[in-house]
Amino acid sequence: MSLRRFLVDPAALAVGEVALAAAEAAHARKVLRLAPGAEVELIDGQGRRARGVLTRLDKSGAIVRVEALEEAAPPAPRLVLCPGLLKSPAMDLLAAKLTELAVDQVRPVLTRRAVPKADGGGAKLTRWQRLAGQALKQCGAAQAPEFVPPAHLAQVLAAAPASAGKLLLYEDEARTSLAQALPGLAGAAEVWALVGPEGGFTPEEAAQAAAAGFVSCRLPHTILRAETASLVVAGVIRFAL
Amino acid sequence: MSLRRFLVDPAALAVGEVALAAAEAAHARKVLRLAPGAEVELIDGQGRRARGVLTRLDKSGAIVRVEALEEAAPPAPRLVLCPGLLKSPAMDLLAAKLTELAVDQVRPVLTRRAVPKADGGGAKLTRWQRLAGQALKQCGAAQAPEFVPPAHLAQVLAAAPASAGKLLLYEDEARTSLAQALPGLAGAAEVWALVGPEGGFTPEEAAQAAAAGFVSCRLPHTILRAETASLVVAGVIRFAL
Repeated sequence: MSLRRFLVDPAALAVGEVALAAAEAAHARKVLRLAPGAEVELIDGQGRRARGVLTRLDKSGAIVRVEALEEAAPPAPRLVLCPGLLKSPAMDLLAAKLTELAVDQVRPVLTRRAVPKADGGGAKLTRWQRLAGQALKQCGAAQAPEFVPPAHLAQVLAAAPASAGKLLLYEDEARTSLAQALPGLAGAAEVWALVGPEGGFTPEEAAQAAAAGFVSCRLPHTILRAETASLVVAGVIRFAL
Repeated sequence: MSLRRFLVDPAALAVGEVALAAAEAAHARKVLRLAPGAEVELIDGQGRRARGVLTRLDKSGAIVRVEALEEAAPPAPRLVLCPGLLKSPAMDLLAAKLTELAVDQVRPVLTRRAVPKADGGGAKLTRWQRLAGQALKQCGAAQAPEFVPPAHLAQVLAAAPASAGKLLLYEDEARTSLAQALPGLAGAAEVWALVGPEGGFTPEEAAQAAAAGFVSCRLPHTILRAETASLVVAGVIRFAL
């Protein structure tokens, strides 16, 4: 059986005795049925992890004794994914899978053709963070993406630093494929990727992004759902660059 | 609103009058509430598509008049994905997403650490084909993968043609990343990719695959769930090669 993993607050993760949050402690006791002496792994969702031993586990809570911390170097390039805001099941899948793909920041974009509205922003962020935390515990990756509240395209374009590699996935791009655009990103310390909602970007939005330095490209051969396109772009930048 | 799409039997798709299957006709009438005169798209799941007009839609069935057929050239390279057999939700996700990613053939592999057994093979194939059909109708891709019944690793290794590019995703590969293995696949007309189940391949299985010409590589930086690794490999081969 693989090591049981628990998510702890970054401020709480240190060498010595670490208390688990109430929900994690209850999960350890009632669902996983662990007992003192069990070896566990703690992650803080920000790149630090530690092995430890449960020294107390009862109704009042759980204590893990940590001997040493490990800090993973963040993967390069820093990857900022900006998907057109999608409905809940698709965004939920993205929150989990972009965590596995070691995306550093997720910035949902409000576009002309995006179906959901930006309301309930706070609740959505909390939900995505929770799903990312679950994904971390399942897959054992060290770090969860930072989720930024949904913002209008112009705001997202303005937030991208001048030095970043910039990619726009645009269905109506006639010339450049993702494979052809990749070499232009080689060596960038940070990459921003914009992916449209279902229905894609409008020509005006694509022009606006191009004016902000985003290189337009497309995925040839097939037609992907919006969330699949985000996963492909993140996977290709993370593993094929 | 985008064009409504219906899946028809490859033998039935032709210029002239095409009858929809009973379930598709009922869906058109009761769920989509279409009426005669509506423009629709027909796909056969094997690369052919056609625009047509509903000329009849009633309890007895649906007829579409087709003026012309289009046949998409299959994408290159031909892509055969061999995932370690996973439990239902993960295999269901793969059936849909590998369809979008224009994978040509899916060959689930029975390995030491695969959790599900190969029983219910026929029912599983039917389920995956149905999910692939739904994905086709949603995303508008032209062709569904062929699903081959789950087979033992040795059988899958023996089935791969000598001329194919061959990739093995192996967690314990120490030297070669997927990005480093990619150039070795350039120009291959067909690529086979083996991806382990949760828990990965055993060292013996990896050695067996290497002996059959599969180049071992890993995904650095993070730890992916098995189904995510399959999606990444398919996406990278399809769009970054």
